[in-house]
Amino acid sequence: MKRHPLYFACAALGATLLLAACERSAAPPASPSEASTATGPGPAPEAPATPPRQAGPAADPALLKMAQSIFEPIPDKAQDPVDNPVTAEKVTLGKMLYFDGRLSSSGVISCNSCHNLGMGGVDGVPTSIGHGFQKGPRNAPTVYNAVFNIAQFWDGRAEDLKAQAKGPVEAAVEMNARPDDVVSTLRSMPGYVDAFTAAFPGETDPVTFDNVAKAIEAFEATLITPGAPFDEFLKGNDRALTAEQQAGLKLFVEKGCTSCHNGVNVGGKGYFPFGVFHTPPEEARPSADLGRFSVTQSTNDEYVFRAAPLRNITLTAPYFHSGQVWNLRDAVKIMGDSQLGATLTDEEADSIHLFLHALTAPMPKIEYPELPGRQDATPRPPGY
Amino acid sequence: MKRHPLYFACAALGATLLLAACERSAAPPASPSEASTATGPGPAPEAPATPPRQAGPAADPALLKMAQSIFEPIPDKAQDPVDNPVTAEKVTLGKMLYFDGRLSSSGVISCNSCHNLGMGGVDGVPTSIGHGFQKGPRNAPTVYNAVFNIAQFWDGRAEDLKAQAKGPVEAAVEMNARPDDVVSTLRSMPGYVDAFTAAFPGETDPVTFDNVAKAIEAFEATLITPGAPFDEFLKGNDRALTAEQQAGLKLFVEKGCTSCHNGVNVGGKGYFPFGVFHTPPEEARPSADLGRFSVTQSTNDEYVFRAAPLRNITLTAPYFHSGQVWNLRDAVKIMGDSQLGATLTDEEADSIHLFLHALTAPMPKIEYPELPGRQDATPRPPGY
Repeated sequence: MKRHPLYFACAALGATLLLAACERSAAPPASPSEASTATGPGPAPEAPATPPRQAGPAADPALLKMAQSIFEPIPDKAQDPVDNPVTAEKVTLGKMLYFDGRLSSSGVISCNSCHNLGMGGVDGVPTSIGHGFQKGPRNAPTVYNAVFNIAQFWDGRAEDLKAQAKGPVEAAVEMNARPDDVVSTLRSMPGYVDAFTAAFPGETDPVTFDNVAKAIEAFEATLITPGAPFDEFLKGNDRALTAEQQAGLKLFVEKGCTSCHNGVNVGGKGYFPFGVFHTPPEEARPSADLGRFSVTQSTNDEYVFRAAPLRNITLTAPYFHSGQVWNLRDAVKIMGDSQLGATLTDEEADSIHLFLHALTAPMPKIEYPELPGRQDATPRPPGY
Repeated sequence: MKRHPLYFACAALGATLLLAACERSAAPPASPSEASTATGPGPAPEAPATPPRQAGPAADPALLKMAQSIFEPIPDKAQDPVDNPVTAEKVTLGKMLYFDGRLSSSGVISCNSCHNLGMGGVDGVPTSIGHGFQKGPRNAPTVYNAVFNIAQFWDGRAEDLKAQAKGPVEAAVEMNARPDDVVSTLRSMPGYVDAFTAAFPGETDPVTFDNVAKAIEAFEATLITPGAPFDEFLKGNDRALTAEQQAGLKLFVEKGCTSCHNGVNVGGKGYFPFGVFHTPPEEARPSADLGRFSVTQSTNDEYVFRAAPLRNITLTAPYFHSGQVWNLRDAVKIMGDSQLGATLTDEEADSIHLFLHALTAPMPKIEYPELPGRQDATPRPPGY
């Protein structure tokens, strides 16, 4: 890999210098008792629903300020996707579709088969098992917080979640369905016709494949996890991280990981070559998968991928688009070597790994949907 | 099939005569206004949570009495399974296990894959798709209300749900797992160790394959659907069924369907040959599947099966152990011909079919469980 190394080296250096600058200008940290009793002028704040987390000592204010300049907390609600206002009716329908195996030609593979909402939004295997027990080419990314990514899939080939939703339904190695069959199946069930009519009011023919994708996108826009310790930290609770997590965050910034892993999803915002300084191990980056090159046909995009979002990363092993690295510390070390030219010690990899634990949040409560029953007119699963 | 025809004919005749007797002794039906305003002595009854269903005219009291003598409503809570008291902790654990694909060797096939709680407790295909996309030998029966069946599987080879739960986990065409691998996987995750310890207090080594099965059984004992119109009818609301459903119920009894389909599950209580009067069509009863013969090795049990429970039958197509009959009216006609020697007219099959709709109930609300995350020590899916 001979492209962009200076850019990345500069970005890493810049982040390191910025942190150093902040440290120099920082006031001494408030003592825990000061921090916990300080109140400002004005009306008394409302009591929070849960007391603020006190996981560790008050962080260096410079570290908090630095973090706030690089990352953003997950909001309580995502912005509406483009051209697709999120309504309760659309979310209800989207949840049904998300869990319905009848969107696949076999009748049994659903979105949730590979993006399992009970398992961090993934399936926990290297690459997903789809139609005919075929294995897909890349590891299934989590659906949680996917709405905050710049684009979808490892190579960004879908500009948003509604474009993404159609891909696996049609892919021969995944759900292997034809859109016409999906629509015929859904149209045959009054329960679905009613749900589409409610979700897309005013449309004369609401049961369409486009609306399937829009409803799934609306549901997925609700699959966000704003409750991680790191979110509390970014919102100003300087004791939300343990001392070890604070140290790991500092190292994460100093080493330059934040060049690619920043913003609300700690990644997912841009495209970067995998292998800036050194070629990664073959298992982590198989040579046959050229990444974003297959989207743009530009040689500049060989082995370029969307930076992995690191939210809930402790729940989504195995790692990388290959899904061949099972241990998060190992993944951190591969990143250090290939992206930053930095051979991380075991202690450093451990430290960053402990920070990454602070990105894990409780998952939203999901009531399993009761799906409309088939009718006599419902087509049999065409690919069973 | 030359066995038991007299038994069945007599049972059908007996049921018909019993209904006739009841009809003769019945008082005239109360008028709707009388029925809805009648109150007894004593303290005023508590207001019901929902007003009683008024789906049709007041039923003939003889029909209600007859039904109450043949069937039972689903109770609000099932009796504890043998040697396995149901506790909240066991149900919580059992639900996690039920939804966890890591009980399979591929890592992605769970109990819910084939007994989908959002689809009436079945998968909606002829026979289930399991490991390697192999198709199983028989249609997946519903898990809802399975606790009320005399035994489990179409041939009754598992005496209860805890025995049943082990079968698909180990079957090569289903989840294809070895119990030792399942236990190693669960033991590696503190979230599961804690859940087993809470569910089986006092046991020094609670994470065992037996306890996996017991926890799943405890969860499944909660998967009951007591809210069908027919349950309200059996509890005394004589207007809970539509006029058409009442007529269908009467025909269901008169034709003798109740010889096999009776009790709380309208079936599931005993074993009967499939093909009493006439050999069923090959698609409905493939000659190669000898049914309970494979359990008992007795020629008396050739083509003998557990009578299908008919609860929520409108949700569980396709039908029969072969899963080859998709239309419920067709299934009713095959039953009439092969079991009762009665060629049902289209109108009669329709009528019985309308009664069967009264057996469909709302499903219990299920919160999708958040499963423990894998650890570095967690074995990789051995059969991926």
